[in-house]
Amino acid sequence: MIEIFYASGAAPDAERLVFAGAEARHISRVMRHRKGDRLLATDGRGTEFDLELDVVSPTRVEGRVRATRRLSREPKRRVVLAQALLKGDRLAEVVEAATELGVSEVVPFVSERVVARTSAARLRRLEQVAVSGLKTSARTVVPVIAAGTDVAGLARRAAEFDQALLAYELERSQSLARVFERDARSTLLVVGPEGGFAEHEVATLRQAGVRCFTLGPRRLRAETAAVTATALCLHLLGEMD
Amino acid sequence: MIEIFYASGAAPDAERLVFAGAEARHISRVMRHRKGDRLLATDGRGTEFDLELDVVSPTRVEGRVRATRRLSREPKRRVVLAQALLKGDRLAEVVEAATELGVSEVVPFVSERVVARTSAARLRRLEQVAVSGLKTSARTVVPVIAAGTDVAGLARRAAEFDQALLAYELERSQSLARVFERDARSTLLVVGPEGGFAEHEVATLRQAGVRCFTLGPRRLRAETAAVTATALCLHLLGEMD
Repeated sequence: MIEIFYASGAAPDAERLVFAGAEARHISRVMRHRKGDRLLATDGRGTEFDLELDVVSPTRVEGRVRATRRLSREPKRRVVLAQALLKGDRLAEVVEAATELGVSEVVPFVSERVVARTSAARLRRLEQVAVSGLKTSARTVVPVIAAGTDVAGLARRAAEFDQALLAYELERSQSLARVFERDARSTLLVVGPEGGFAEHEVATLRQAGVRCFTLGPRRLRAETAAVTATALCLHLLGEMD
Repeated sequence: MIEIFYASGAAPDAERLVFAGAEARHISRVMRHRKGDRLLATDGRGTEFDLELDVVSPTRVEGRVRATRRLSREPKRRVVLAQALLKGDRLAEVVEAATELGVSEVVPFVSERVVARTSAARLRRLEQVAVSGLKTSARTVVPVIAAGTDVAGLARRAAEFDQALLAYELERSQSLARVFERDARSTLLVVGPEGGFAEHEVATLRQAGVRCFTLGPRRLRAETAAVTATALCLHLLGEMD
């Protein structure tokens, strides 16, 4: 298993990287790396570093950069997942899986049937989860966690994208494969809360150019729908090959 | 939101259904159904019942069958997910999502790098999770949870299927879309444990005709890989339309 470490704020042309805090503890204590070990690190903004460790302590880890590469495991096309707030830790699970799969951004939003509450602390926690997904997946760009919005805000953002799509449980005929434009450079994918969307919300999004699709006749929990729709979307873009 | 209730052991031509125990409590207390309410139930073996409740108490719920249908939301083709044991509750999460997506069977197995332990109690718990996935998704056939096996056992089962496929993190060139036979009536999909497969295990499976595929350049946690591979597989079979 490769693991990639997160060197937040490193310059792309850095000759040395320094890790402190939780990341130093993780490298030294959890992964038990030693002086002389080679490992991969990323600045979370598209650069990957080959590193040779020369200082390893529980509070500080340093290494010499032996080689630098620009991203190779990143999708070429931009997929943004707009996910309604979910109860408990489910939104965090969706953010982690979507990060591994390759989304560029997650947009949490509230809608009429959202029962979960959001807070600055919860949004910060999602950023940590995105970093954790980045490390698992050995990605080199950490997805943005957008500030929370609502259905009207999503409708306004839809115009930014080559296509905007909504997983809608009452859509019966249009599958994702059917509505999907495979040459879109940017895709906004909208997935609702546990209780689904209200009809007037779907109307608002449709008016903004968002197209509805079905994930088939079996009903999926919101988090299964989110992971499934994200995976299918990246597959249809050729990003899972 | 439709919900479907589980009438275990009901005859397909039953004129009345009776719920006791947890299901009676769920219908009467949690969902607060009343005498005269119409609801959907299934025997978990492919029959769906339209029911009108005429007895509702916390310990016993009865209803008259107004109509009976054979399955309509079930996939036409058979997909079986063989999933290595995972730590904590992750195998249960995979079973629930795979049930919603439409698998016919889940085969838990041990391999060299499996660190989780299995037990009769854990396997029984997976059966409950499959019933819960069936109810969420309004499916009418509950997936079988096979007895635990190992890599040699999987290799022996591979011959039962029109195609057998392995999500392998060291496979670089063959995508699922590329190796997939879209007219297969039955597919065995194998997903490994957190630490991946040992090379000799992959060799054993390859010799039994199992073909390897990649889910792309980003590394996925085992549970994300399982949900993703299952979703893509059902999509490629046209079962998510």
